[in-house]
Amino acid sequence: MRYLITFSYDGTNYNGYQKQPDYSTVQGNIEDALYKINSNNPVKIHATGRTDKGVHAINQKAHFDLKEMEPSSLKRSLNYLVNDDIYIKNVEIVDCEFHARYHCKRKEYIYKMNLGEYIPLEKNYIYQYNKSLDIDKINKSLKELIGTHNFKSFTIEKDYENHIRTIYTAECSLENNILIFTFIGDGFMRYMVRNIVGTLIKIGEGKVLNIKDILNPSIEAKTGVIAPACGLYLNNIWY
Amino acid sequence: MRYLITFSYDGTNYNGYQKQPDYSTVQGNIEDALYKINSNNPVKIHATGRTDKGVHAINQKAHFDLKEMEPSSLKRSLNYLVNDDIYIKNVEIVDCEFHARYHCKRKEYIYKMNLGEYIPLEKNYIYQYNKSLDIDKINKSLKELIGTHNFKSFTIEKDYENHIRTIYTAECSLENNILIFTFIGDGFMRYMVRNIVGTLIKIGEGKVLNIKDILNPSIEAKTGVIAPACGLYLNNIWY
Repeated sequence: MRYLITFSYDGTNYNGYQKQPDYSTVQGNIEDALYKINSNNPVKIHATGRTDKGVHAINQKAHFDLKEMEPSSLKRSLNYLVNDDIYIKNVEIVDCEFHARYHCKRKEYIYKMNLGEYIPLEKNYIYQYNKSLDIDKINKSLKELIGTHNFKSFTIEKDYENHIRTIYTAECSLENNILIFTFIGDGFMRYMVRNIVGTLIKIGEGKVLNIKDILNPSIEAKTGVIAPACGLYLNNIWY
Repeated sequence: MRYLITFSYDGTNYNGYQKQPDYSTVQGNIEDALYKINSNNPVKIHATGRTDKGVHAINQKAHFDLKEMEPSSLKRSLNYLVNDDIYIKNVEIVDCEFHARYHCKRKEYIYKMNLGEYIPLEKNYIYQYNKSLDIDKINKSLKELIGTHNFKSFTIEKDYENHIRTIYTAECSLENNILIFTFIGDGFMRYMVRNIVGTLIKIGEGKVLNIKDILNPSIEAKTGVIAPACGLYLNNIWY
């Protein structure tokens, strides 16, 4: 049987989502739980995408194959076995052709940053920027990100076959000094969201950076720096 | 000079507020910072009150004596030296007779609990109760807590000279399955708020517990259990 799970995690204490020997990872912890459920036989899970060290997820999704089980009972067993900073929100049976990564149509990331005074209780959950920004300039640049563009400049990894991605939503809201960015797109390359946020921060600081130039492959203007991992959340996935 | 500081902390990684040998404490960390600022001479700080292991503070206050310094520069030095889960929000000069504990008139505690599904990202910040409660019954009991009563049954420590306290505000609000209690009073004994919340939980579960009987010294009816530390925040102090 093929199962699709929806899960949430606090990325603070993991060396990222993807399993690696000798490191604590989200994938590793869930696969350890499934190993026990599967009578000590390994089960490989296939997530929609990786998240980097320190990045959180509200609704990450992954599929795997396992013997026939009641979804509610599998959910209970998984939650009993995984660490308490991971939670399986939903288990459903899917078609055996279904693939969590290949069939993903849209993804939503949010990024939280604090423009007010330092909040120690949120240090791992909201980027503590602790200065003000020009939100009008940021909003103008957000609009320029929407659409289908070559986002090559926003990734560091150079092993992508193609750097064309479509962003459907790029917006921000400010409440009580907490700035929240929302990005919905058909796919995001590694560090792309954090690099976009880092660039928007530079723009909000008044640095002369032009999103259109960065998105133009014949110019490939410099981006800002990569924003810290703790503010980033994989929020939603659509198939 | 006598200084009054207002500070916030994430209590998760401390063995409580109060300094103890061989344990990491909030008071210990701030006094270590002041020791350095005071040219390696000890400075004792006097807080409004202790908070127990795992309890957080949004606006804790403490006074101490130190050489003359610009408050803004003292604030900067303290924040440079304390751990990143403690933050000094304000430093002010006060009268040398001022006492952070004795002159405190009112304190506000809030308690957060999640009646919805488990949220791994909030496990240290909102008590993950993860079941529903009868809010009407809780609201009725909250009203009975308001006023001047003998709260002896709500503390474990028996070394208080008198157990009479006044509660001015006792209320709760529910939003997105997060139940937030607010208690304002002239003083709270050790475990008192968590014991009140634990009792309100039993009442919300339908157990026959009567606040009036618990507050009656000639009956001293049993309370509920002490609610977990992670949901409790020292929120405000008034002089």
